[in-house]
Amino acid sequence: MIRVGIDMMGGDFAPEEALKGVAHFLESDDHAVHIVMFGDSHLIDEHLSALQLPADGYTLVHTSQSIDMHEHPTKALKEKPDSSIAVGFQQLAQGNIDAFISAGNTGAMMVGAMFSIKAIEGILRPTIGAYLPREDGSLGLLLDVGLNADCKPEHLNQFAILGSLYAEHILNIKSPKVGLVNIGEEEGKGNLLAQATYPLLKSNELIHFIGNVEGRDLLINKADVMVCEGFTGNVVLKMAESIHDIIKRRNIQDEYFDRFDFEAHGGVPVLGVAKPVIIGHGISHHTSFKNMLRIATKMVESDLNGKIKESLSQIL
Amino acid sequence: MIRVGIDMMGGDFAPEEALKGVAHFLESDDHAVHIVMFGDSHLIDEHLSALQLPADGYTLVHTSQSIDMHEHPTKALKEKPDSSIAVGFQQLAQGNIDAFISAGNTGAMMVGAMFSIKAIEGILRPTIGAYLPREDGSLGLLLDVGLNADCKPEHLNQFAILGSLYAEHILNIKSPKVGLVNIGEEEGKGNLLAQATYPLLKSNELIHFIGNVEGRDLLINKADVMVCEGFTGNVVLKMAESIHDIIKRRNIQDEYFDRFDFEAHGGVPVLGVAKPVIIGHGISHHTSFKNMLRIATKMVESDLNGKIKESLSQIL
Repeated sequence: MIRVGIDMMGGDFAPEEALKGVAHFLESDDHAVHIVMFGDSHLIDEHLSALQLPADGYTLVHTSQSIDMHEHPTKALKEKPDSSIAVGFQQLAQGNIDAFISAGNTGAMMVGAMFSIKAIEGILRPTIGAYLPREDGSLGLLLDVGLNADCKPEHLNQFAILGSLYAEHILNIKSPKVGLVNIGEEEGKGNLLAQATYPLLKSNELIHFIGNVEGRDLLINKADVMVCEGFTGNVVLKMAESIHDIIKRRNIQDEYFDRFDFEAHGGVPVLGVAKPVIIGHGISHHTSFKNMLRIATKMVESDLNGKIKESLSQIL
Repeated sequence: MIRVGIDMMGGDFAPEEALKGVAHFLESDDHAVHIVMFGDSHLIDEHLSALQLPADGYTLVHTSQSIDMHEHPTKALKEKPDSSIAVGFQQLAQGNIDAFISAGNTGAMMVGAMFSIKAIEGILRPTIGAYLPREDGSLGLLLDVGLNADCKPEHLNQFAILGSLYAEHILNIKSPKVGLVNIGEEEGKGNLLAQATYPLLKSNELIHFIGNVEGRDLLINKADVMVCEGFTGNVVLKMAESIHDIIKRRNIQDEYFDRFDFEAHGGVPVLGVAKPVIIGHGISHHTSFKNMLRIATKMVESDLNGKIKESLSQIL
């Protein structure tokens, strides 16, 4: 049975929304999944009775500490060994859970992922992807979106492989089109990084490379996987998020822009680390938690990491 | 009298829209400005009679060639010495006109600006800025948006000065707030470039530096001038432009998003070159041309380049 761990103390509405997400997941999901919740059992118990969770569907692991949204990641993880995030990663590393999700301190989640469970052998840099909604109803995957502010061409080439496998096995896109985020259409355009990355992607037989994608292509279905360093990716993602805020503020009702609600997509995967880890938005509500549980389950079920290892073995 | 040169062969609707723009400018503007039009006089004459331009308001300089939107910039400028862009820059270099604008081949305009009229002494890299509309009705200036795909910290520091002077003297913003585009709020965040640029901006007494601006801050009034290398700037700008296309496609009527019509703002200035040069969008219509003529006039009237030289003399 798959065991998915969830940090109950993370996010702006902890633990209620996480708990509701778990309840909805257990109600609606066919999968044989056991949920392991990490958090303050007193706080959680208060809300548990109202939700009627199936007793055999979950385990509650009491943790006496929690890491605040604004704490320094490394310091917090060190000084709070009994925090929900620290214990979650410990259990993940020990194999007691198969995946771990949290909407808590993003930095602590990244540091935890990198140092507790390490990168998959051969992976130079784990990466974080994010979804970009497209007008045709599909989702594109942009990566990196902030974990790697400075990159080398080989890093982007690996992001392309990681994103491609995620798009194929988790987003169910056959032979996903991979594009290099760039400032021009033709090969040879762009900054030094993009210029040096293009030939690597072009000769990479593990991916379906379609060339450059420009800023204007990010929200259309030109490429399914869009690769860049984490600086540009983060600026683009946060601008896209702000567009959704503006749309809401201006009371614009539109099906497409509603999908700019990044929360709805349920967190972003950390790719390239040895176990599935998903990081949610601080503002996550129950739907988001439910979706994160689903994605984590799918990452385990599809053995995404096994497929990543297999792919890497073909080129290393 | 100020003499502003305009390429009549540039843009998707040449020469009609440029011509209408000139007509509207001459009609409505108080300034004592003489327009010098460069282009195919046969083509232009066809449309001139319908517009009743004041005969003393303009001069038409016949050019026998024109550079296509998709031609290679350097090659085209070399092989077409009698093109409207080549002749325009020649006249600008010789002092026969005070400013030059075009909605034609962007690359040719940049190459022309860099090689015909050169950079202002002390400027390491001229830059191109673009406007970002903000919800409160104001405009922010983002630079660089593509001329400099790879930058050093000293370049960004100069972009901050150039943008600041443009915002003050052309956009009429007193003591414009300058922000560093970054992926985190605090000093020390970001990629190596941003980390190294922050202290330069902080100690730059010629600007009013307010710290980092993230992707989510680009469309709000946090900073008036937002500085980054041209890779990120170009991706952001083109994504913002595509948002406007999507809004139009989806028939969303909204005052704010209407202002995402980048055309309406009338072209982007090349800053740091010795004479005012403005590059318009290929799709420019007459309003855009009129606005470009106005901005060019204002750049000459306010002696923006003199102010740039004065500022540089304080730090060189």
